[in-house]
Amino acid sequence: MKTVLLMGFEPFEQEVVNPSWEAIAGFHGQIMAGYHIICRQLPCVFGESLDMLFTAIDRFSPALVIAVGQAGGRTDISIERIAINIDDARIADNKGNQPIDQPVIADGPTAWLSTLPIKSIVWALQQAGIPASVSQTAGTFVCNHVMYGLLHMLSQRPMSKGGFIHIPYLPQQAAAHLGAASMSLETMQRGIEIAILTALSVETDIPLTGGATH
Amino acid sequence: MKTVLLMGFEPFEQEVVNPSWEAIAGFHGQIMAGYHIICRQLPCVFGESLDMLFTAIDRFSPALVIAVGQAGGRTDISIERIAINIDDARIADNKGNQPIDQPVIADGPTAWLSTLPIKSIVWALQQAGIPASVSQTAGTFVCNHVMYGLLHMLSQRPMSKGGFIHIPYLPQQAAAHLGAASMSLETMQRGIEIAILTALSVETDIPLTGGATH
Amino acid sequence: MKTVLLMGFEPFEQEVVNPSWEAIAGFHGQIMAGYHIICRQLPCVFGESLDMLFTAIDRFSPALVIAVGQAGGRTDISIERIAINIDDARIADNKGNQPIDQPVIADGPTAWLSTLPIKSIVWALQQAGIPASVSQTAGTFVCNHVMYGLLHMLSQRPMSKGGFIHIPYLPQQAAAHLGAASMSLETMQRGIEIAILTALSVETDIPLTGGATH
Amino acid sequence: MKTVLLMGFEPFEQEVVNPSWEAIAGFHGQIMAGYHIICRQLPCVFGESLDMLFTAIDRFSPALVIAVGQAGGRTDISIERIAINIDDARIADNKGNQPIDQPVIADGPTAWLSTLPIKSIVWALQQAGIPASVSQTAGTFVCNHVMYGLLHMLSQRPMSKGGFIHIPYLPQQAAAHLGAASMSLETMQRGIEIAILTALSVETDIPLTGGATH
Repeated sequence: MKTVLLMGFEPFEQEVVNPSWEAIAGFHGQIMAGYHIICRQLPCVFGESLDMLFTAIDRFSPALVIAVGQAGGRTDISIERIAINIDDARIADNKGNQPIDQPVIADGPTAWLSTLPIKSIVWALQQAGIPASVSQTAGTFVCNHVMYGLLHMLSQRPMSKGGFIHIPYLPQQAAAHLGAASMSLETMQRGIEIAILTALSVETDIPLTGGATH
Repeated sequence: MKTVLLMGFEPFEQEVVNPSWEAIAGFHGQIMAGYHIICRQLPCVFGESLDMLFTAIDRFSPALVIAVGQAGGRTDISIERIAINIDDARIADNKGNQPIDQPVIADGPTAWLSTLPIKSIVWALQQAGIPASVSQTAGTFVCNHVMYGLLHMLSQRPMSKGGFIHIPYLPQQAAAHLGAASMSLETMQRGIEIAILTALSVETDIPLTGGATH
Repeated sequence: MKTVLLMGFEPFEQEVVNPSWEAIAGFHGQIMAGYHIICRQLPCVFGESLDMLFTAIDRFSPALVIAVGQAGGRTDISIERIAINIDDARIADNKGNQPIDQPVIADGPTAWLSTLPIKSIVWALQQAGIPASVSQTAGTFVCNHVMYGLLHMLSQRPMSKGGFIHIPYLPQQAAAHLGAASMSLETMQRGIEIAILTALSVETDIPLTGGATH
Repeated sequence: MKTVLLMGFEPFEQEVVNPSWEAIAGFHGQIMAGYHIICRQLPCVFGESLDMLFTAIDRFSPALVIAVGQAGGRTDISIERIAINIDDARIADNKGNQPIDQPVIADGPTAWLSTLPIKSIVWALQQAGIPASVSQTAGTFVCNHVMYGLLHMLSQRPMSKGGFIHIPYLPQQAAAHLGAASMSLETMQRGIEIAILTALSVETDIPLTGGATH
């Protein structure tokens, strides 16, 4: 059976949960649209996260890989458009690494575009009443690192699609960050399911704007 | 049996739902901590909203009155501290009224403080993992109008407590307002139930800061 | 000669300057529209700030009193509409006081409205190309404390007008607060001069909305 | 004499000025650190802006090219890190073009990194008391279009450095956008001069973090 690989992260930066893992863990082992869903929790560590990701891709040869990460402070489910070949860490990762302006992959291209139908996913989420948008940057921390590494590896596997989705804090996290936006676990789970189904079913993305003036 | 009166609002400003009504309607007729819950939907109209509120208070002589309103763009459940004797409408209400710097109640005092245990409610919400804060302003539109009128009337009824709670957009509303924060209906409902139970059980509010430097 | 009293503050919360003092100090001793300008720097301390303010008002019997304070994070010159009779300090003042839910003036009314022509000032500032708005809350820290005390005292002096203006960080402050808005000293100074001249010349405020829906 | 080419833009999206042109125009014809400064105003039009830019680079063979653009709503001077090979217009440009997901340069690489010493520029600005940061996205409108085209052309001219700087609204613009941040023309001009001098003098950028977690 064809597989879909979902990746979430362990908690980082003083948090005790990471919404990305909470939101995907329940899908592990499920069948969705005829695809077997495999979930993995990545360490929030430069390098090690990619090692685990590459191992999983080699093992399962998934048709679709979606990595999900926490974007504390964002308000919606944001579908990342692009990953860049730069690690520039504002904070240390979970093993104390804090690279500055290092490449994710030496000699890799400057950036890779998501191969998900990002406009279709945003549109499907909004139609379902879930706040969503295209994001033009995945940052320069472990999330971007994983997205870049993923797309770099998939560039050698033209039958596989992949990309990255950022989600807000869970309510229980935002309760400790005065003024921060949040999203319920149920909304996140529905959103990710819609993203998966859209990615599996859409061949050619729809020409809707998801741009930013700056 | 003693009663609790919950007030929500009809939709306004191009919205098709108002989260304040969605979040409370299900409590109508329930018994909570020995109190009978009565819910009413207020028109988003200056004057008429207060007429309906006053009629309901006269009829039910509630021990507790909580009005709930939509604060599109806010991220959390905000417990309002104060209502001011000013109607200053940035947009027209649902009947086209747009008063500027008119008193809510002629010859009323400049402001009334909520008689809810606002710090205890915020604390209880945060303990339950629900984003919450004290708000220092309920604005100058129909929400503040209703809060002021409510507290003015209750000032003559010392056995009754009352106040106002602002809630964010629902996800389906935020899906149409790019970048706006939201909260799920379930989280809102749990939050309002906690607020009611806290208001019914706390005699003396706890001395936690809920202040703002500006 | 008639006098105008301008009050600014000393720095607080790790800052080395307070834009409110930088923006007004240069006006001390000037004549504006026939009024003698007197400036005073208030301590960022509950109680002591009001003592100094009351002493200055008693001494100079000013026709107009404007207190100016720093609102770090705000983007524009905000003309405060109302002060409330509550001290609720999120941080300690410069002498370590951190009152919670204490009245500014025991037995004072719940709130006092600015007696400045706030709409006219906002309009004049915007016409001059200076970002400005009405603010519905001055917070619950020393700024609100001073505004409330000022308006309470002036309520016994019907010939005197008074109010409070919040200003953003200076650029050199925002340079140390990633992402915070700022305003140049020159723009602040022009803004305060316009506010003074407008307050001195306008008898009846203009009916423009300065309201907020929440 | 060696030259520096500065590019600003004409107004767009209902504005009557563009701060990017206001902030650079005064440098035209000046000598700075031994370099002759040439300024050009680009149309806010896909394609035409690049034509004019390419013509100017061919004519002047500048050692340094900095394009400056308006980022309405941002609070600081943001030094762009990267340009991507995508035109995705949320609004129409000044000639009505609204491309969606078109490449800036057919067959160009996915992205180009700024060749300015972006960390050194941010550091120098902050040291001078000017709010500044690294930005991870220049958007997908004409600013990114020009930045990408510029870096693509300069990739064939290894002796030339180039990049893009986004600046906030001017105060007179923000006065018409309630709540928007702004920066004075003088601060912008000082900031751009510091950026030019830093770009001309720094050979190897300093390893300071300018990263984002998302």
